[in-house]
Amino acid sequence: MRNIKLEIEYDGTNYCGWQVQTHQKHKPSIQDTIEKVLRKILQEKINLIGSGRTDAGVHAKAQVANFKTSSGINLNKLRWALNGLMPDEIAVSKIEEVPLDFHSRFDAKSKVYRYTILNRGFPSAMLRNTAYFYHYPLNVVLMQKQARPLLGRHNFKSFQASDNKERDATRTIKRIKITQDRDLIYIDIEADGFLRNMVRNIVGTLIEIGRGNPIDMKKLISLKDRRKAGPTAPAKGLCLMKLNYK
Amino acid sequence: MRNIKLEIEYDGTNYCGWQVQTHQKHKPSIQDTIEKVLRKILQEKINLIGSGRTDAGVHAKAQVANFKTSSGINLNKLRWALNGLMPDEIAVSKIEEVPLDFHSRFDAKSKVYRYTILNRGFPSAMLRNTAYFYHYPLNVVLMQKQARPLLGRHNFKSFQASDNKERDATRTIKRIKITQDRDLIYIDIEADGFLRNMVRNIVGTLIEIGRGNPIDMKKLISLKDRRKAGPTAPAKGLCLMKLNYK
Repeated sequence: MRNIKLEIEYDGTNYCGWQVQTHQKHKPSIQDTIEKVLRKILQEKINLIGSGRTDAGVHAKAQVANFKTSSGINLNKLRWALNGLMPDEIAVSKIEEVPLDFHSRFDAKSKVYRYTILNRGFPSAMLRNTAYFYHYPLNVVLMQKQARPLLGRHNFKSFQASDNKERDATRTIKRIKITQDRDLIYIDIEADGFLRNMVRNIVGTLIEIGRGNPIDMKKLISLKDRRKAGPTAPAKGLCLMKLNYK
Repeated sequence: MRNIKLEIEYDGTNYCGWQVQTHQKHKPSIQDTIEKVLRKILQEKINLIGSGRTDAGVHAKAQVANFKTSSGINLNKLRWALNGLMPDEIAVSKIEEVPLDFHSRFDAKSKVYRYTILNRGFPSAMLRNTAYFYHYPLNVVLMQKQARPLLGRHNFKSFQASDNKERDATRTIKRIKITQDRDLIYIDIEADGFLRNMVRNIVGTLIEIGRGNPIDMKKLISLKDRRKAGPTAPAKGLCLMKLNYK
C-alpha cells in the first residue's frame, strides 16, 4: 500500500466546492472529479482526503490531498495521466509518495488564504472570476490598522458562518497582511485553521472599515456576535494558497 | 455628432474574434456584442470601428475602438451602462471623446502584442485560457538571439498566414523582447502593423528555435516562404496589449 500526496491548482468557478454541498448538487465537486479520474486510471476504489473544504467558487493555488493505493504506477506518469484526463480547470502540480500515516487534514499545521479585491471604477474581464470588483474607494491604511487585533489566538465566533456547527471557534491567526498593487488589494491570512466563511467574513468586515464604517475590530472579536461583523465577501476573490505541514 | 473612443479589455476564449469570421459563425464576435449593447443604450445605429481584428481565442488588455453618436450621454455613465450590460468577459476600461476625424485603425502608429508561454512539466488551471502550455524545455537565450534579426523594416511574408491576401507584406517591428519569469516566457512585440497570424507564426518559429531546431531567422526572413517557418502558435497565448496613436 502506498500513500500519495497531491498538490492541486483549481479554478473553482464552475464547481460546487472541494466537496459536494447539499445546496449545490447540480455542479460537480473538485474532489469527486479527481477521484473519478483516479479510479479510471488506477482501476480501484480511491478515497481522496483533502486538507479541508473550499466553498463553491473559491479557487486553490495549492490544495493538498492524499489517497492510498496498491498500484505501483510511476508517479510522474500518473501526474501526466491525471492532467490529461481531468478538465482544464483542475491541474495537479506536484505528486509524491508520503509515509502511510500522513493525513492531509489532520497533519496540516497552517493554511494560507489570499483574498483579492479589484478596487477601481471599472471591472476587469480577465479578473472577473478571481477578484472581487469593488468600485467604492477603500482606505487601505485603515484596513491594515484594524487587521492587527486579529493576530493571535482568539475566539472568532464573530466571523463564523451563522449555520456553522463547530463548537470551539478558537483559532490562531499567525499572519495577516494587506498589500496594494495599483488597483489590486491583497489580503493574505495564515492560521492554524479556519472556521467556515471565516476569511470571507473577515474580508467583508475589513471592506466595511476601508470604506469608512467605524468598526473597532478588537471590540468586534470580543462581542462574539456574527451580526456585528460585515457581510460575507464573494467567494470568487478567495484562493487557498498554501498548506504548511511542519 | 460626437466621436467616442473606447479602450476595451476582453477574454477572447468564447468569441469568434473581434469581427465575425466566416468559419466561426456559431460564436459571437466582440465587436457585435459591444455594438448591440451600444445600440440598446443609445437607441441609434452604431458602427464600431476597431483598431484591427483579433482572431478567435485571442485576448485584449486594451483594444481601441471608436464610434460616432448624436447622443449627449455622460461618458462615465455610458461606461457604467456598458459594463453593466455586457457579458463579464468584455470590459470597457476607458471612454473619452476624441476629434471627429480620429479613426481607430487608420490613425494607429503601432500595436503591442504579448505572447505568454507556460514552460514547465505540468499545466496551470488558472492560465489554461491565457498561456500556451509547452512542456518541452525552451532555451530562452537562443530565442532572444534569433529574435534580433526580426527588428526593423522587412518583408514578413515568411510569417504571413498562407490564406492572407495582403499584397504588401512589409512591416516594421519596433521592439521585440523575450523575458522569463520562473515558468513563464513572455514575448512582447511592437510593430507599425501586423500581417494576419504574424505574431503567432513568429512565436511558433521562436519556440522551434528554443527547443533546438537550428533555424536562422535572418535567412528565414529573406526566403519569404511561409513553409520554412514554424507552426502557428495557439491563439490563447496571445494578447493585444496596447495601441499607440502618436
